[in-house]
Amino acid sequence: MRAVQVVGYDQGLKMAEVPMPEITGPLDVIVRIGGAGVCRTDLHILEGQWAEKSQVKLPYTIGHENAGWVHAVGSAVTHVRVGDKVILHPLVTCGLCRACRSGDDVHCENNKFPGIDTNGGYADYLLTSARSVVKIDDSLEPADVAALADAGLTAYHAAAKAARRLTPRDTCVVIGAGGLGHIGIQVLKALTPARIVVVDRNPEALELAKTIGADIGVPADGSQVQQVLDLTGGNGAEAVIDFVGEGGATSEGIAMTRQGGDYYVVGYGENINVPTIDLVSAEINIIGNLVGSYNDLQDLMALTARGAVTLHTQKYPLENFQQAISDLDAGKVRGRAILIP
Amino acid sequence: MRAVQVVGYDQGLKMAEVPMPEITGPLDVIVRIGGAGVCRTDLHILEGQWAEKSQVKLPYTIGHENAGWVHAVGSAVTHVRVGDKVILHPLVTCGLCRACRSGDDVHCENNKFPGIDTNGGYADYLLTSARSVVKIDDSLEPADVAALADAGLTAYHAAAKAARRLTPRDTCVVIGAGGLGHIGIQVLKALTPARIVVVDRNPEALELAKTIGADIGVPADGSQVQQVLDLTGGNGAEAVIDFVGEGGATSEGIAMTRQGGDYYVVGYGENINVPTIDLVSAEINIIGNLVGSYNDLQDLMALTARGAVTLHTQKYPLENFQQAISDLDAGKVRGRAILIP
Amino acid sequence: MRAVQVVGYDQGLKMAEVPMPEITGPLDVIVRIGGAGVCRTDLHILEGQWAEKSQVKLPYTIGHENAGWVHAVGSAVTHVRVGDKVILHPLVTCGLCRACRSGDDVHCENNKFPGIDTNGGYADYLLTSARSVVKIDDSLEPADVAALADAGLTAYHAAAKAARRLTPRDTCVVIGAGGLGHIGIQVLKALTPARIVVVDRNPEALELAKTIGADIGVPADGSQVQQVLDLTGGNGAEAVIDFVGEGGATSEGIAMTRQGGDYYVVGYGENINVPTIDLVSAEINIIGNLVGSYNDLQDLMALTARGAVTLHTQKYPLENFQQAISDLDAGKVRGRAILIP
Amino acid sequence: MRAVQVVGYDQGLKMAEVPMPEITGPLDVIVRIGGAGVCRTDLHILEGQWAEKSQVKLPYTIGHENAGWVHAVGSAVTHVRVGDKVILHPLVTCGLCRACRSGDDVHCENNKFPGIDTNGGYADYLLTSARSVVKIDDSLEPADVAALADAGLTAYHAAAKAARRLTPRDTCVVIGAGGLGHIGIQVLKALTPARIVVVDRNPEALELAKTIGADIGVPADGSQVQQVLDLTGGNGAEAVIDFVGEGGATSEGIAMTRQGGDYYVVGYGENINVPTIDLVSAEINIIGNLVGSYNDLQDLMALTARGAVTLHTQKYPLENFQQAISDLDAGKVRGRAILIP
Repeated sequence: MRAVQVVGYDQGLKMAEVPMPEITGPLDVIVRIGGAGVCRTDLHILEGQWAEKSQVKLPYTIGHENAGWVHAVGSAVTHVRVGDKVILHPLVTCGLCRACRSGDDVHCENNKFPGIDTNGGYADYLLTSARSVVKIDDSLEPADVAALADAGLTAYHAAAKAARRLTPRDTCVVIGAGGLGHIGIQVLKALTPARIVVVDRNPEALELAKTIGADIGVPADGSQVQQVLDLTGGNGAEAVIDFVGEGGATSEGIAMTRQGGDYYVVGYGENINVPTIDLVSAEINIIGNLVGSYNDLQDLMALTARGAVTLHTQKYPLENFQQAISDLDAGKVRGRAILIP
Repeated sequence: MRAVQVVGYDQGLKMAEVPMPEITGPLDVIVRIGGAGVCRTDLHILEGQWAEKSQVKLPYTIGHENAGWVHAVGSAVTHVRVGDKVILHPLVTCGLCRACRSGDDVHCENNKFPGIDTNGGYADYLLTSARSVVKIDDSLEPADVAALADAGLTAYHAAAKAARRLTPRDTCVVIGAGGLGHIGIQVLKALTPARIVVVDRNPEALELAKTIGADIGVPADGSQVQQVLDLTGGNGAEAVIDFVGEGGATSEGIAMTRQGGDYYVVGYGENINVPTIDLVSAEINIIGNLVGSYNDLQDLMALTARGAVTLHTQKYPLENFQQAISDLDAGKVRGRAILIP
Repeated sequence: MRAVQVVGYDQGLKMAEVPMPEITGPLDVIVRIGGAGVCRTDLHILEGQWAEKSQVKLPYTIGHENAGWVHAVGSAVTHVRVGDKVILHPLVTCGLCRACRSGDDVHCENNKFPGIDTNGGYADYLLTSARSVVKIDDSLEPADVAALADAGLTAYHAAAKAARRLTPRDTCVVIGAGGLGHIGIQVLKALTPARIVVVDRNPEALELAKTIGADIGVPADGSQVQQVLDLTGGNGAEAVIDFVGEGGATSEGIAMTRQGGDYYVVGYGENINVPTIDLVSAEINIIGNLVGSYNDLQDLMALTARGAVTLHTQKYPLENFQQAISDLDAGKVRGRAILIP
Repeated sequence: MRAVQVVGYDQGLKMAEVPMPEITGPLDVIVRIGGAGVCRTDLHILEGQWAEKSQVKLPYTIGHENAGWVHAVGSAVTHVRVGDKVILHPLVTCGLCRACRSGDDVHCENNKFPGIDTNGGYADYLLTSARSVVKIDDSLEPADVAALADAGLTAYHAAAKAARRLTPRDTCVVIGAGGLGHIGIQVLKALTPARIVVVDRNPEALELAKTIGADIGVPADGSQVQQVLDLTGGNGAEAVIDFVGEGGATSEGIAMTRQGGDYYVVGYGENINVPTIDLVSAEINIIGNLVGSYNDLQDLMALTARGAVTLHTQKYPLENFQQAISDLDAGKVRGRAILIP
């Protein structure tokens, strides 16, 4: 089968002919790829930024946002059948450690991460586990939802965590209406009655945000902290979800947070640097957020099936992988780039 | 009546004869002081550190950790009677704002803080509100519990918050076995089955900690992060409560926190300075903590009444206020200094 | 001023000229009534069903669903001003007992219930407390929202409690699409992404339910339990909210509840009679529900202000109180009957 | 190997020589039995009460409370090794259904129940799954803890659920200080600072209860409801855990529950029969309770390892199974009867 591989850092990806994966364990699942998301992380991998952390051996197949059809299953797989449409949770987890037994798959002590530390989905087929496949609704197409597997799932996780504490009288600020923020706003709209205020530099992104659920758009023109305070009687918002995490967003986000409120950090880049006295006197919480759990992905797919979450995609045949990568790098992709085998 | 007052910054306190407070509102309560805690914050007030923040007019009576007997009540006070032994929640709250209506007194939008921004308890009598008095058990004496009103309540609040998420398989690290830590350890022992690990520089403090509930003492000799990791299979603790907040404690505390765990900041002084990627990839939460609510104080008094929380005190007659202040400043107070009118 | 009073049981209400209420306490609030809901409970009061329980002395003014304008306030009232539009929480609470201090006003140990055990709102003016008035949005009219003060607040409370545990993959069954159910469905639609299935005998009520948020209507034709099981893969619903509570609804509701799920009882009349083995083996919870808290009413008013909850009303001048009562008794009121002074 | 089997209903168990179980799947685990609890349910099985429900084919090996040593493991088992001491969660679960993915093993849609619907632990060896084995501390012996696998786990689950809502000012009533109640009291003592009041007919059981954590013993002499009300200022307890569930315990338990409180039903036998108006007006919850999850069993073993939970056992060699059964039936077993192969 075909697979697009990392063959060395600081050089291009290469398409290779590789052996088909095989079922060897009873919980193995082989998926015929219907769509593989092209993510900014893939650019970082090529630059070698993940080499030390992942310890992956080259060459290997890249691609960590995958959806498709079940092609083959191990003997113990009962919840999906050959031919089922599925989206893949990004991690392959053990199912036996304390985190797995608590539904907190993301902190599995023995996980693998296809596309990062083992073969991923820029290919015709992918080997994963029964614990990672989520059946999707008949009305959905793998290529349309693939990018929800990681970027979307991260946004869902943070938004759902915030929604659990929000009431009809609260305000939730979303910093950054880009890829993740776009999903996060839709999820918040579906999960919480709180007012949604979106902060972004880009006026077009703010306009788009209003069409998918934002109640108010605030331009990030330097006055955004004051604007949020003005919108909240000088108090700040009960929740702030920061999908940016750099360029000053963290200190602005904390400054927008009400006494007793929660600042959710999702995007990353800069340091959070805050006097302890500020956290103590205002009793603010800083909440870390990683990608969501298997249950989160099931929930996200339920919302997607009823049209509550949609994603704009730009599709490329698998063999045009280089074009997709180049377009992403050049900022020419609207929504998410998807490779179709 | 007698009152010890701040008459100017960077000069000593002075005892004055002032008029007795009077009942003017239906929820007013006048308390005959049985004990007033002498706190490090009082030293800071004298240095002028709170002058701008509190905007208090001089002269005024200092003292924010108070307990005594009800001396007079307004017409609408039904839950305490003249003669009742009471401890005072440090804030006088409005009862009408959203925070008050949610049991979250500390974030009251219209609060007063006797001893900080209005007359406090280094005096024969103090004016407070029905919303601030907690009846204490017959077996307790005001002078013995007064210091629980603020320092103890802060420790209770953080420990109780942590306890809500802890299970018998978890580890809770307490950084700092001083005044607040001492109470925090006892509260944790009463509220949670988790293992309690205490970190402190002082070997005697560690020994004392073990007699009041700590399972393990870890000397803060530079290797404390590694020691906590070793005690937790390399993972870190599910909860870390930092009563120090300076001298490197914050970064050490975060480094001791397990993936998905909570770092509670109570002590303050330095900045928290942490890469967003660390919070995101480990999905750690930083939880701010202020003093507890009225309900927290009720709970703490219930524990105290049954002997689960005790505090060592060093008592001084009110007229010896200068000695108490000087002893505290010189590090000569074991436990808490208490003024007795 | 005018007041419609109960002068004896098993006889009609009478309009009387009574003295205006006066401000005597600092938290007193006098409200000029803009609308007073006529409730089935009022019929039961006239039949004497509440006489023993309420111990009210006759004559007294009836009416427990009230909204209007602030007419006068006591000296300590800071959060509303004369002229403000307000809706009234049905209870007057003490603010000092444990329940009040926890935001759980409904279980106040010293409450009064205007319209039930003291003078209510079928009148030109009503005396209440600062703790009971909720300012409403400028866009709302007292007469339009008055019935949300009790009936609506009860529905909100149960629906919001259920919503806290519901996810996008869950199903919530609402039994009864009448007065309370009508509000409950709108609240669920605003608060939860779960699928909403409504069960009612009346095909028109089911049609109406679909226009305000129900995903599926199930006729209560004897097959409703089986229909709900069929809709949920044979498992039952994660939550069932029973606004009927009689005529077999309770056993049907429990039979519709999934293993580990919650059955919320709101309507009442019959006994719940269920083998303990059924609750144990399926691990089902039966959740009691009373009227909501002050915070619930604030939240409900926030939803109402943005148009998420609406109520059909049939308005009568105060002097036509007998017509309103008769129409309600005869089943001729669509939505809620409201008296306008 | 030896196995004690049900060969027909209403006749005695028989010991047979049967083939050793074999590892066929990668998650299979074979345990050499160190102790198998003899439970009242085993008597009911012999009477045929479970025949229809379990659909088990005769003959089969009985025994559902098991602990021992790992004898052999499948290829995918990583968290236990041959020789490890383990206790067995009573269910063998699929790991793939929604309940399993949420840590709620007990509601697994595809579970097996060794000793009930497939071969159990009155035998030399037992086949179970990697998902069911919990490693126990070196200091514990399988025969001493076996009975915690089911009876103890049920008590833990209910007590831990109650503890999550209890504070130092609350009262928790335990109805029934027998086998389950005995564990429940110890667990409550470890998990909550609430006052523990135990109700039982047997004065000796009450005395014993006080030695293991009960604060107050109340004889069930007909006045127990009134006694609990007297102990709680006339209000009732915040939580009531009913380990009896028959002979009037359910209505008494509900009558002992405070407004807004929780009645936990664990024991079963009679019907709960309560007017809906009582649940609604007092806003009481009735909480169903089944056996605990795998995580609960881990937590219970953590408490047991530190001596917080102990169980009296009466041990019999496996071949004396008939004696153990007869002693249990005759009420001659103190604590739990355990068979030792």
